[in-house]
Amino acid sequence: MVLLEYLEDAYPNPYSLLPEDAIGRAKARIWIDHISKKVVPAFYAFLQAQEKNKQDAGREKLLQGLAKFVRAMAPASSGPYFFGSQFTITDIALAPWVVRFPSVLKEYRDFELPAEGGDDDVWTRFKIWKDAVMNRKSVRVTSSDEERYFEVYKRYAEDSTQSEVAKATRAGRALP
Amino acid sequence: MVLLEYLEDAYPNPYSLLPEDAIGRAKARIWIDHISKKVVPAFYAFLQAQEKNKQDAGREKLLQGLAKFVRAMAPASSGPYFFGSQFTITDIALAPWVVRFPSVLKEYRDFELPAEGGDDDVWTRFKIWKDAVMNRKSVRVTSSDEERYFEVYKRYAEDSTQSEVAKATRAGRALP
Repeated sequence: MVLLEYLEDAYPNPYSLLPEDAIGRAKARIWIDHISKKVVPAFYAFLQAQEKNKQDAGREKLLQGLAKFVRAMAPASSGPYFFGSQFTITDIALAPWVVRFPSVLKEYRDFELPAEGGDDDVWTRFKIWKDAVMNRKSVRVTSSDEERYFEVYKRYAEDSTQSEVAKATRAGRALP
Repeated sequence: MVLLEYLEDAYPNPYSLLPEDAIGRAKARIWIDHISKKVVPAFYAFLQAQEKNKQDAGREKLLQGLAKFVRAMAPASSGPYFFGSQFTITDIALAPWVVRFPSVLKEYRDFELPAEGGDDDVWTRFKIWKDAVMNRKSVRVTSSDEERYFEVYKRYAEDSTQSEVAKATRAGRALP
């Protein structure tokens, strides 16, 4: 969050990455906090879990965290992003984790998004968001090849890394 | 942090509560994060601990967190606040906890700040900060009477409250 706010402060042009109104900006920050405190920890808990029941619990928490985020999005009729037509730091905060779904969560934990339902369905809305965000040039040119993520996350999937994030996840503490 | 940023966005005049430059703003946010993740959890861990050795560990963590914050402050020669002459959301984030030192930590845990040393001493710098912040009108008029804090925190000191903050502290989890 600090880095994203810094980029916005240092390079406000030509494209602002925060809503213009104070309430919208607060909302952006509330949902970034949700990603940091709920979605990202669930990603790691799911990936580092070695027993089936803990993996299932991690998957469930990740899906719940994502669904809550998606339900807070503007309707797709106003645009694909969290706030509709404006791409903001709220979208950016989640993007790297979704980039890692196929190469890391699918490969190591056979993770699939739930099937899409009708127009008002949460996973239909999420797919619209995902397609728009994953296809943005800024996201594409700053993502690695899938094999690279697969390699880098191997030690998480085997729960053998001693990174600070991994240790916090193992201990059930807040991520650093 | 979200609330403080909102106040800054919604009421930027007549007094901005964030440094003007992007680096200063990032620094403000980094140190608010330190208060949220290190100082406040230590405050609760110290207060809720029932055994002497856990209380000592909590006190130590609180002092370490405070000292780290104080060492990042501008020199007192430039002004009393974290950034020197400008009072910012970084000062505001810590203020309520320091307000509670006499009525809560002193009363329940016999907490004292370490003795002040020479001019470059961390606790001398902290006292300059504390005196300036505690005497600001905005802090005074938004603080309760000391007896009130004493009462409200009784259930924390006895570790009998079921608030979300208390439960997270007990479990060693991140505060909600």
